[in-house]
Amino acid sequence: MKILISNDDGIDSYGIIALARELKKYGEVFIVAPIFEQSAAGHSITMKRPLKIVEHFIDGKFFGYAVNGTPADCVKIGITTILNFVPDIVVSGINHGSNTATNIIYSGTVSAAREACMMDIPGIAFSINGRTSENIDWAAHAAANITVKALSHGFKKGKLLNVNFPNLKKDEIKGTMITKQGTSKFADTYDTVHDVIGRAYHQLKGDFVNLDDNNELIDQVAIENGYISITPIKLDSTDHEEFEKIRNWNFVEVNP
Amino acid sequence: MKILISNDDGIDSYGIIALARELKKYGEVFIVAPIFEQSAAGHSITMKRPLKIVEHFIDGKFFGYAVNGTPADCVKIGITTILNFVPDIVVSGINHGSNTATNIIYSGTVSAAREACMMDIPGIAFSINGRTSENIDWAAHAAANITVKALSHGFKKGKLLNVNFPNLKKDEIKGTMITKQGTSKFADTYDTVHDVIGRAYHQLKGDFVNLDDNNELIDQVAIENGYISITPIKLDSTDHEEFEKIRNWNFVEVNP
Repeated sequence: MKILISNDDGIDSYGIIALARELKKYGEVFIVAPIFEQSAAGHSITMKRPLKIVEHFIDGKFFGYAVNGTPADCVKIGITTILNFVPDIVVSGINHGSNTATNIIYSGTVSAAREACMMDIPGIAFSINGRTSENIDWAAHAAANITVKALSHGFKKGKLLNVNFPNLKKDEIKGTMITKQGTSKFADTYDTVHDVIGRAYHQLKGDFVNLDDNNELIDQVAIENGYISITPIKLDSTDHEEFEKIRNWNFVEVNP
Repeated sequence: MKILISNDDGIDSYGIIALARELKKYGEVFIVAPIFEQSAAGHSITMKRPLKIVEHFIDGKFFGYAVNGTPADCVKIGITTILNFVPDIVVSGINHGSNTATNIIYSGTVSAAREACMMDIPGIAFSINGRTSENIDWAAHAAANITVKALSHGFKKGKLLNVNFPNLKKDEIKGTMITKQGTSKFADTYDTVHDVIGRAYHQLKGDFVNLDDNNELIDQVAIENGYISITPIKLDSTDHEEFEKIRNWNFVEVNP
């Protein structure tokens, strides 16, 4: 099995190091990841400037390729230009911080797996609900197991899973749960700061607000309840209910 | 009616100028848009540096606020920090280039309208299928009509429409069509260029590949057939079919 790993925290984050170590037990691992952190990169790609590829070493040993681009860039350039073959799966993470509910839209971690899905390769995104590292090792172990288990069940090209771990010790985990994407928003504010000559700049501060009730099948609720959340994601974002409804709106009159 | 307009081509693109001119016939228009082009910004937001807000003038007359951020940033900072009130609708575009099928995922134009949707404000994204400007004026006229018509039909907070115009003269337009998001991919390659001391850089080149058959209810097919495509979009990207299917996959065994 050939596995491409990327992330959005950058190639030197502990999440990707632990994930690579665990996945090497099951296959050949290739790493192409951003050289700088790309949190909240969404599904952005770099079109206006060329990308550079740099070999990245850890303790003097080759680890993978660092790219001065976004997570989606890393998957695109990784497959088309660095690997020159199609991997069996693309795995992203482990992100330091959960990617549940509408955070999926902002997430660079999910975008790497989504880019794989768009390239007809199975993709899985892994995140853990915390910025600390003490539970990353077991999460990486479980992530490798989930990857292998999904493939053994016929998880195939064009499919995408978004996995979130609670930031708990492994004996506090209650199990895995297949979930749906929740709804959330950010209560955004901007802090105004001033430069040395008094000009104002505005720094985003956003507090995550969960908008779901306690439905245990929702991603954010599941991790808060101590479960590993596994959400199948698709590329089609058509609102099929609204599609039927607005067909009765007479837009024909708006013709220019 | 209070209307916030943003885009991803930048505050000086003709698409936003024409759209603002037409929407001013129906309400009070406020413009907050990126100072530099943000094509393919996806739904990225700026977290690691503060944003600057600059007043932008056209022919010596105040036009709107330019922000050194992404389209989603512009909507966030526009509503929370510049306007300090909630507009009745957020309109994005008109983008020079279509945003159909999986391009919706890369699109900065759609992300501005999606950010509004995430803030519980109705959002509409407008794009035209070409880089030229000769049909922007009628498209802007039609876009304003679509905006007003949608609101009159009860288009409400938390809802999102993605509208694409064919790049045709107005008497060549066949009408409007309510459509679904299509499937597409990019046939990506990277051109290798070298800097003055011979180091390699890689410039993305992608060709859009439509993967749909000639189903007229698909966004990309509709615009190719000469129709204005109107697609209702939602924030939930759960794959509900896969949700039912993978519940039978025994992930419990993967517990750490």
